[in-house]
Amino acid sequence: MSIEQEGARKSIGARRSPESADAILEAAEAVLIENGYSGFSIEAVARRARAGKPTIYRWWPNKASLLLEVYQRQKRDVDYPDTGSIEEDLFGFARSLFVHWRETPSGGIFRSLLAEAQSDPSAAEALADYAAGRRANTGKLVARAKARGEVAAHVDPEQVADLVASYAWVHLLTGRLDEDDATLRRAIAMIVNGIKA
Amino acid sequence: MSIEQEGARKSIGARRSPESADAILEAAEAVLIENGYSGFSIEAVARRARAGKPTIYRWWPNKASLLLEVYQRQKRDVDYPDTGSIEEDLFGFARSLFVHWRETPSGGIFRSLLAEAQSDPSAAEALADYAAGRRANTGKLVARAKARGEVAAHVDPEQVADLVASYAWVHLLTGRLDEDDATLRRAIAMIVNGIKA
Repeated sequence: MSIEQEGARKSIGARRSPESADAILEAAEAVLIENGYSGFSIEAVARRARAGKPTIYRWWPNKASLLLEVYQRQKRDVDYPDTGSIEEDLFGFARSLFVHWRETPSGGIFRSLLAEAQSDPSAAEALADYAAGRRANTGKLVARAKARGEVAAHVDPEQVADLVASYAWVHLLTGRLDEDDATLRRAIAMIVNGIKA
Repeated sequence: MSIEQEGARKSIGARRSPESADAILEAAEAVLIENGYSGFSIEAVARRARAGKPTIYRWWPNKASLLLEVYQRQKRDVDYPDTGSIEEDLFGFARSLFVHWRETPSGGIFRSLLAEAQSDPSAAEALADYAAGRRANTGKLVARAKARGEVAAHVDPEQVADLVASYAWVHLLTGRLDEDDATLRRAIAMIVNGIKA
């Protein structure tokens, strides 16, 4: 199980039946691809999955949490490298995230979700949970580097993940996903330079 | 003239008459305080300022650019310290930005604007311009440190500003403005550690 799948799995919750959950997530992904963010609703997903709305709500408290899990599934192509160098790992991760957002509908979906979270409290809560999970997950790259002595002992891996993710998110939100590799590399190198053992 | 005023002034444009521009900005600020983000419109500002809408549009191409200038004016209380230490300067700046967003309506206004920019192209353009201006402005703190030999010669001051601002923006967008001083200090120290001469 990759570091990425492990992170996604955590949010699923212990008692969920894998077949139905997967069926609903697949239906939700299909609805999102066909209708876009604005046409995505629990009702449309229930219809498509031939499931009851209460079944969906039992596992996902609101539309945003379901949407975020679909979004996360679509991020299968984002790399979490393990090269033995924290700079290469974080650069590879950030670069593939930029490419993924730029070249798939995922970037637009995440922008819409971030926007909605600014006025809808349930979306804000789902986003905060999602972001905390992502920090924990990306933090594992840093924790691994710490374990092999590449990163200083006092460094909080999740805070490093927070800095990298924030840089990426704001590039998405301000239409700067075309940042060239050299610039992205310099940003990552700056962070890595600040945490070395 | 402080570094902050200088930055704000730049966006005003050479041919604007200061009296009318100030009158319109003051009217816009009053409209924003009374009606909130959702009730803010060029029409309401024109009525309040007793100005024609074309006059406003001559100086600000759209609602978002006017709103961003009002927002920027409200950030008068945000510090751009000059302590002789880049870590103290950036920490002081970031801390006062967090406090400003947390304790005034500014945080909510900026969240709304960021949200609108995800679906409205003119708001997106105004936000991109604003963000570039802010990077240039905060970058001056870093350029100053570079000039006194505290920061390495290869460092791009605006990229440092980008990292600090991204960290702050994402904290705003994910409801984490209550981050304690020690955590904020560690984030800034990490960045500064990575750019030292």
